[in-house]
Amino acid sequence: MRGMPIEPVRWRPGRLAVLDQTQLPHHELWVELQGADTAAAAVRALTVRGAPVIGIVAGYAVALEAARGTGEAFAAACDRLRGARPTAVNLAWAVDRVQAAAERDGPDAAVAAAEAIHDEQDAAAAAIGEHGADALPDARRILTHCNAGALACAGEGGTALSVVLALARRGEVEVLACETRPLLQGARLTCWELRRHEIPHALCVDAAAAGLIARGEVDAVVVGCDRVAANGDVANKVGTYAHALAARAAGIPFVVAGPLSTIDPATPDGAGIEIEERAGDEVAGAAAPPGTPVRNPAFDVTPASLVTALVTEAGVAVPPGRAEIARLLSLAPRAATR
Amino acid sequence: MRGMPIEPVRWRPGRLAVLDQTQLPHHELWVELQGADTAAAAVRALTVRGAPVIGIVAGYAVALEAARGTGEAFAAACDRLRGARPTAVNLAWAVDRVQAAAERDGPDAAVAAAEAIHDEQDAAAAAIGEHGADALPDARRILTHCNAGALACAGEGGTALSVVLALARRGEVEVLACETRPLLQGARLTCWELRRHEIPHALCVDAAAAGLIARGEVDAVVVGCDRVAANGDVANKVGTYAHALAARAAGIPFVVAGPLSTIDPATPDGAGIEIEERAGDEVAGAAAPPGTPVRNPAFDVTPASLVTALVTEAGVAVPPGRAEIARLLSLAPRAATR
Repeated sequence: MRGMPIEPVRWRPGRLAVLDQTQLPHHELWVELQGADTAAAAVRALTVRGAPVIGIVAGYAVALEAARGTGEAFAAACDRLRGARPTAVNLAWAVDRVQAAAERDGPDAAVAAAEAIHDEQDAAAAAIGEHGADALPDARRILTHCNAGALACAGEGGTALSVVLALARRGEVEVLACETRPLLQGARLTCWELRRHEIPHALCVDAAAAGLIARGEVDAVVVGCDRVAANGDVANKVGTYAHALAARAAGIPFVVAGPLSTIDPATPDGAGIEIEERAGDEVAGAAAPPGTPVRNPAFDVTPASLVTALVTEAGVAVPPGRAEIARLLSLAPRAATR
Repeated sequence: MRGMPIEPVRWRPGRLAVLDQTQLPHHELWVELQGADTAAAAVRALTVRGAPVIGIVAGYAVALEAARGTGEAFAAACDRLRGARPTAVNLAWAVDRVQAAAERDGPDAAVAAAEAIHDEQDAAAAAIGEHGADALPDARRILTHCNAGALACAGEGGTALSVVLALARRGEVEVLACETRPLLQGARLTCWELRRHEIPHALCVDAAAAGLIARGEVDAVVVGCDRVAANGDVANKVGTYAHALAARAAGIPFVVAGPLSTIDPATPDGAGIEIEERAGDEVAGAAAPPGTPVRNPAFDVTPASLVTALVTEAGVAVPPGRAEIARLLSLAPRAATR
């Protein structure tokens, strides 16, 4: 639709480059990744972020690594990449899949597996947009958190922003973008994407969301996800849970959008999701007295009971309980899920 | 108790100075205020902040103004000061009280009224601490938002932090201080006060509070307030409402601490409280693409139904309904309330 396409990952056979998301919106810098260790560093530094795009990049990085051999050193490199961030499940999923292809059928198969992941995530984003818009026929004012757009989730608009783009094709839409402290992915990345797409939007602090929802200024909350447990509990960027509570209190839909690759049937519920605690200096910055101790969880868990709908490329789980999630997973091509 | 006393307002007959809260924690600068207009500018710029301290400063500023005459120009200056910020009720309350004393009994009576407000708020802070600690006998891990300490609310520890100080005199306490975007009063001011008092604490982003509460890391939420309606609905710094929702979901107490001067019986409920919308550049800063539109409400409203207890100098309203609030107001010396 409107604006220039947003492409966070570029792959030419044998060469992998990513748009450095720490430099947006002011600089569009591309960083070349040589293999698993540079990819792991890029993931840790948030040069690359967003569960689906982390999966795409990890897949290509494993394919690059496989071209150098698929022995013990290869397996060790895959392990190091798998451990770069603990919460998003797509990272381990993509590494497993491309590593298995390499070890079974060699480096060309690894490239094919990585390209398949990228194609699947692009297609998933498009389908998620349409399914999400179908599920929210009356929503015009959408609140979102962090960045679940093309930068994070591939495709034209990623996951949550794909829903926004699909709604915008059907009528008027405005977005309230939460800034997403501490690293401001909402302010920096979501506002940048929305401007590229010419979607009317405003920025607010994360803490303003609940009050604006209570005042009737939001029709629906739509967010992405970093991991969905088998029972529908959702790990997403810290701050998501409070928006879900506010949506429930106001009686508006709280919708989670993500590809099936984000669902982890091996995690029974939210209590089993490891929440990454990041460095305190991301929070304290120059504001707090020097040496102030910090708690900096990067994610939180929204219980399935607060999720109105889970939107995937295979359809929508309303509500997202164990049975509905298992049904969606059963609809997917086998390779696309764990 | 421990640490150096914190004194946000200095009054020597005829001279009023305030600690510039925009410069903390790195610089302790004092700003002299000559009268109503410099006080109004300081209130708008958040040089002076916190409903009770705004009231104290406004009282002295009116007294300074009264020394120059109590005619039409005096009344106009009082009106300009009264309008500096719309949400906190203490501002209008203090201006009304000192103006009435000046117009009735002259400038010396205005000084006496302003000094009485200061003394009452100091005494209220001490009583609030003890009442709040009595209401939370088992709370050890306290989450607070913004700054409701001595800087905002006078006394040794203001309102919410007076409760923390009283709990600390009775046993071990730790505080989780929410940074309070956009202006970071939690990071800058609450952490500074807690360090002065040698109370163990950690800083977190506002959006992390709900998840940490859900994970069982907080025993009680204790916050201040900018205005309490007659039915117990509470306006406080934006972000407070989400903490109240999270506390309710986790089954922990959500306690609001404030002097009786913060209660506005003329406002029937939260819907009648004007929410100040501040400039967008406070939020957008350098992070968002230039020109990004911003919503920046400075406050939100927590419905009385989510408030476990309202702690005042006259006692505790549990829960804070109309009748309980009217009872507390009836216990106060007449001058201390509207």
